[in-house]
Amino acid sequence: MWVDREDLVERVTREVMGRLPGRADPVPDRVDVPIGVSVRHVHLTKAHVEELFGEGREMQPFADLYQKGYYAAKEQVLVVGPKGAIAKVRVLGPPRAFSQVELAQTDAVAIGLRLPICSEGREAETQPVTIIGPEGSIRLPGGAEGGAFIARRHVHLGEEHAAEWGVKAGDLLDLEIEGPRPTCLHGVLVRVGRGWRPEVHLDTDEANACAVRTGQTGALVLRRRPGRG
Amino acid sequence: MWVDREDLVERVTREVMGRLPGRADPVPDRVDVPIGVSVRHVHLTKAHVEELFGEGREMQPFADLYQKGYYAAKEQVLVVGPKGAIAKVRVLGPPRAFSQVELAQTDAVAIGLRLPICSEGREAETQPVTIIGPEGSIRLPGGAEGGAFIARRHVHLGEEHAAEWGVKAGDLLDLEIEGPRPTCLHGVLVRVGRGWRPEVHLDTDEANACAVRTGQTGALVLRRRPGRG
Repeated sequence: MWVDREDLVERVTREVMGRLPGRADPVPDRVDVPIGVSVRHVHLTKAHVEELFGEGREMQPFADLYQKGYYAAKEQVLVVGPKGAIAKVRVLGPPRAFSQVELAQTDAVAIGLRLPICSEGREAETQPVTIIGPEGSIRLPGGAEGGAFIARRHVHLGEEHAAEWGVKAGDLLDLEIEGPRPTCLHGVLVRVGRGWRPEVHLDTDEANACAVRTGQTGALVLRRRPGRG
Repeated sequence: MWVDREDLVERVTREVMGRLPGRADPVPDRVDVPIGVSVRHVHLTKAHVEELFGEGREMQPFADLYQKGYYAAKEQVLVVGPKGAIAKVRVLGPPRAFSQVELAQTDAVAIGLRLPICSEGREAETQPVTIIGPEGSIRLPGGAEGGAFIARRHVHLGEEHAAEWGVKAGDLLDLEIEGPRPTCLHGVLVRVGRGWRPEVHLDTDEANACAVRTGQTGALVLRRRPGRG
């Protein structure tokens, strides 16, 4: 007969906490979170914006993203690898402290890049890549100075939601997706930022593999119930 | 304290069965199965091979596939959708009773097709598509006469493995994949054929989403253990 001690303690603790005055709602096992599908894109420093688009040029917001203060810019670039190039890759704003190129594995294969899965563009494994704009081109060296990579699946959370749900930055959670290609994505990295809205970011390969589009939701698993797959 | 009656009965039954003489090995909970990544491809009837490549022409084997008797042919075609075309799409042999085009969602988007997830090319939802070869072109009408679709993730099993593992054609299993993009693919359709070797087929979107390549393995979950995610 199977019993897990830690699980039992956790369940009783939660039950008690949930019944204490002023703490009527226990932490749920899973919460539905909107999914945002990240198509290949680049982030640029202010200096790189000028190198690619001309002196004195600033990014022009084209469409607001789901997270407040972030936008898709009017600016687009050509991303070049050893075996090809991808045109009209969108620049996202605002400008960053370092530039980076985020591609799906499908994109990487198409232009001959072999890319690592990274959480951000300054990790040591990011790869060199060339970016061409209408007024100039830049070469990101990879590594700490910024490069190309495949983004690790992650979830944005505001500080309030993170606290309420009992998770913290760096946690790795499961995301259960239903539909015609039901899938559980493990290792969804938790990122916490002030004012962020809960949103899972997947790349196009992941979204296509799960047959989801931006705006659909997945169930973020805060805690596994025993006996449930 | 959580106890599942059915689970208990099942576990005891398996334990007893496993200890009976001549039945030393109980059915495992999960088995490692090789993964084959299906790049976009087409299957053709003999008549369509002649229409596309010339009268009297037969497919020329180019490379054997993992399943005995199946091969990638030398022949390649252009697959055309309303917004574009994909060149050098491989034809797989041997010829079939109906023609079909299997694309990843990434491919479908690139050429402007909106495709369903199907198990085979004669399902009602498959879509019309044009195929162009060096000597002619054909138009698959979609539906029962063959069309384009996105393949449902599936696993090939020989009759012996299916019997040994207690699964049958049509079952839907989970496949756990480890690595940099750990993922559990639900709903992996079981297909059983005489002489087939155990092999999971994923398309390129799924493989890229899980960061796996042909030849790596995944754990096919024959039965969930309680308390295990």
